[in-house]
Amino acid sequence: MFIKKQRLLTPGPTPLLPRALHAMMASDIHHRTQDFIKLYPQVLADLKHVYGTQGDVLITVSSGTGALEAAVSNFFSAGDKVIVLSAGKFGERWVELAKAFSLDATVLTAEYGDTVSPARVEAALKENPSAKGVFFQASETSTGAAHDVESIGKLCQAHGALCIVDAITGLGTMPLDIDGWGLDLVIGGSQKAFMIPPGLAFISVSPKAWAQGASATLPRLYFDLKKEKKMADKGESAWTPNVSLILALSESLKYIKDLGMDNLVANAQMLAHATRTAATTLGLELFAPNSPSSSVTAIKAPAGLDSSEIVKGFRNNFGAIIANGQGTMKGQIFRIAHLGYFDFADMFSLIAELELILHSKGVPVEFGKGVAAVQKIYAEAAFKKA
Amino acid sequence: MFIKKQRLLTPGPTPLLPRALHAMMASDIHHRTQDFIKLYPQVLADLKHVYGTQGDVLITVSSGTGALEAAVSNFFSAGDKVIVLSAGKFGERWVELAKAFSLDATVLTAEYGDTVSPARVEAALKENPSAKGVFFQASETSTGAAHDVESIGKLCQAHGALCIVDAITGLGTMPLDIDGWGLDLVIGGSQKAFMIPPGLAFISVSPKAWAQGASATLPRLYFDLKKEKKMADKGESAWTPNVSLILALSESLKYIKDLGMDNLVANAQMLAHATRTAATTLGLELFAPNSPSSSVTAIKAPAGLDSSEIVKGFRNNFGAIIANGQGTMKGQIFRIAHLGYFDFADMFSLIAELELILHSKGVPVEFGKGVAAVQKIYAEAAFKKA
Repeated sequence: MFIKKQRLLTPGPTPLLPRALHAMMASDIHHRTQDFIKLYPQVLADLKHVYGTQGDVLITVSSGTGALEAAVSNFFSAGDKVIVLSAGKFGERWVELAKAFSLDATVLTAEYGDTVSPARVEAALKENPSAKGVFFQASETSTGAAHDVESIGKLCQAHGALCIVDAITGLGTMPLDIDGWGLDLVIGGSQKAFMIPPGLAFISVSPKAWAQGASATLPRLYFDLKKEKKMADKGESAWTPNVSLILALSESLKYIKDLGMDNLVANAQMLAHATRTAATTLGLELFAPNSPSSSVTAIKAPAGLDSSEIVKGFRNNFGAIIANGQGTMKGQIFRIAHLGYFDFADMFSLIAELELILHSKGVPVEFGKGVAAVQKIYAEAAFKKA
Repeated sequence: MFIKKQRLLTPGPTPLLPRALHAMMASDIHHRTQDFIKLYPQVLADLKHVYGTQGDVLITVSSGTGALEAAVSNFFSAGDKVIVLSAGKFGERWVELAKAFSLDATVLTAEYGDTVSPARVEAALKENPSAKGVFFQASETSTGAAHDVESIGKLCQAHGALCIVDAITGLGTMPLDIDGWGLDLVIGGSQKAFMIPPGLAFISVSPKAWAQGASATLPRLYFDLKKEKKMADKGESAWTPNVSLILALSESLKYIKDLGMDNLVANAQMLAHATRTAATTLGLELFAPNSPSSSVTAIKAPAGLDSSEIVKGFRNNFGAIIANGQGTMKGQIFRIAHLGYFDFADMFSLIAELELILHSKGVPVEFGKGVAAVQKIYAEAAFKKA
């Protein structure tokens, strides 16, 4: 028996930034005192900095789904025409939300692993000139595919529809020019590239979204963003905040600002590139080869091998928690994450472990070949720079 | 300059149980793995044990207000007739929720510091035989007054209306026989008697509530309790849970179970009794003398003294954070909390500090007189038992 350090390497929750985790120990502060009112506006300002928008960025005490709901309930009315892109489990969540809140949704679906093209979005906007919003995922975490956010954002701008982006795994893994591309509502989550535990969600709101929201009649109170904004302007939160996670976020945002959001994105992109290269070098097939996300790489299990066996192999042999497929993709694919606090050390061991697991399952593998592919990418990127 | 240990002594957030706080450091587990699925059902079972109900008890990742919203959106339809008791800032939140979700609310108000009598509730139920629910606070945290939950619960039972109790500061501070008294929805919050930071809310659901919910048409997704229940039955949460707080809750529930919920309630009641006695011994007036809550005691500032000065005195001289009045009560009252992890050591120092602060503001005080009143209560209760 060898020591197995348990490592959480999933596309959310992600590896925790130690200093952010430790900051939670100072949770005995009250949210209506100066202790908090010194902390919260700085957190909101840093979050806005990291989002890179001139619009508002607000925090909700909820999972990401709560902020997705806020994007619906604050800016739309029952019966509003909208367009929903559905290319995976999280696209299906938008569909579910649109239904729960009685929006009149035209759903553009793509096969798992694929994405909805901007051309299809444009055609749908032309067919539905009254559409008030387009909902989609920047990165569809369940399949590892990324939408063309820039093109879709610009189409929404041209057609006057709100552009609503679930960027829960997109933020910090791909460039998102929120103001330049016309992204009106951009949702993030604490347990993703923000490197802290789950429990907080974020949403940026453009002036155009606020204007549409002024006449939106869907019922809401807990997720009332106008109320949240009013309190945020006073340095407070509308409801009792999750103080422990605000403390953690304060630390992780400092880390991300010091690193630079561009570097965080570049880091994820480089790790994603290395993972794809290693996987194909080992003869494995990518699940979303045409529009791969940099937040997570979905890899097909070799023919005849259930991907659950690979996930279990990582866990049982090496203490590494990686993601299986979700829904019908379970057993078909496994997913390696890159969002947030991931580095090349994680990669070297993960690929070495993958080689050993494949070998143990009878898949022919040349030890070190996948690792060498990652090393080559590292050497080219890092030593060239130096 | 003396050392001032900062002490959080407010009616929520409350003093943190150290072992629960420390448990949050183990947050790097994934909510769809066995690590979590071993943890969560035990937490739900312990929560149910502590609630003392045969019904379901579910957890939402939100502040308490989120669970209040869930109590509205899951069990009612727009236009439903309901009765809302409003005796303080939290009663006003029920009114706000009823309005946001288009319920047809008959509002029974009481002056701050007072409560709505069961007789008034009975009259309202007779006048509104179609009323589908009665909403109120067990303990109105803003005024320190407690409603007669047993009588109101039994009236709801007799009239067939759902009984919806905001027990966010009631749980763990007063007896609540959920099943015996017919309390259909009972809401709690993590940062109260549960001794952990804010970010989780709890709601018990009776079979009668589930039955009414089956035909409820208000829109909901994030707070969809049917979905939550379905996942809870599988040992999981519907959305990504706040893992750090679930870990903390697991520890605090063990502590409360070991202590006994009855003893937690008795502890709060004894501290509340001692606080009231000390306050009146010092010549101060209680804000809710007729129906005092055991979660928090609201005390009027002496004539001519702004209660903010007392609150500041605690903070600046002794590092103790106590609560001011809320809304129009700010400056009029100060509030001493008893819910959760409070003990007699807290009381002795608080009352000694109060005596010093009053003295420093020119209020005539005999040092030690209030403390002696608390000591006497302790001696009678503890040494008699021994």
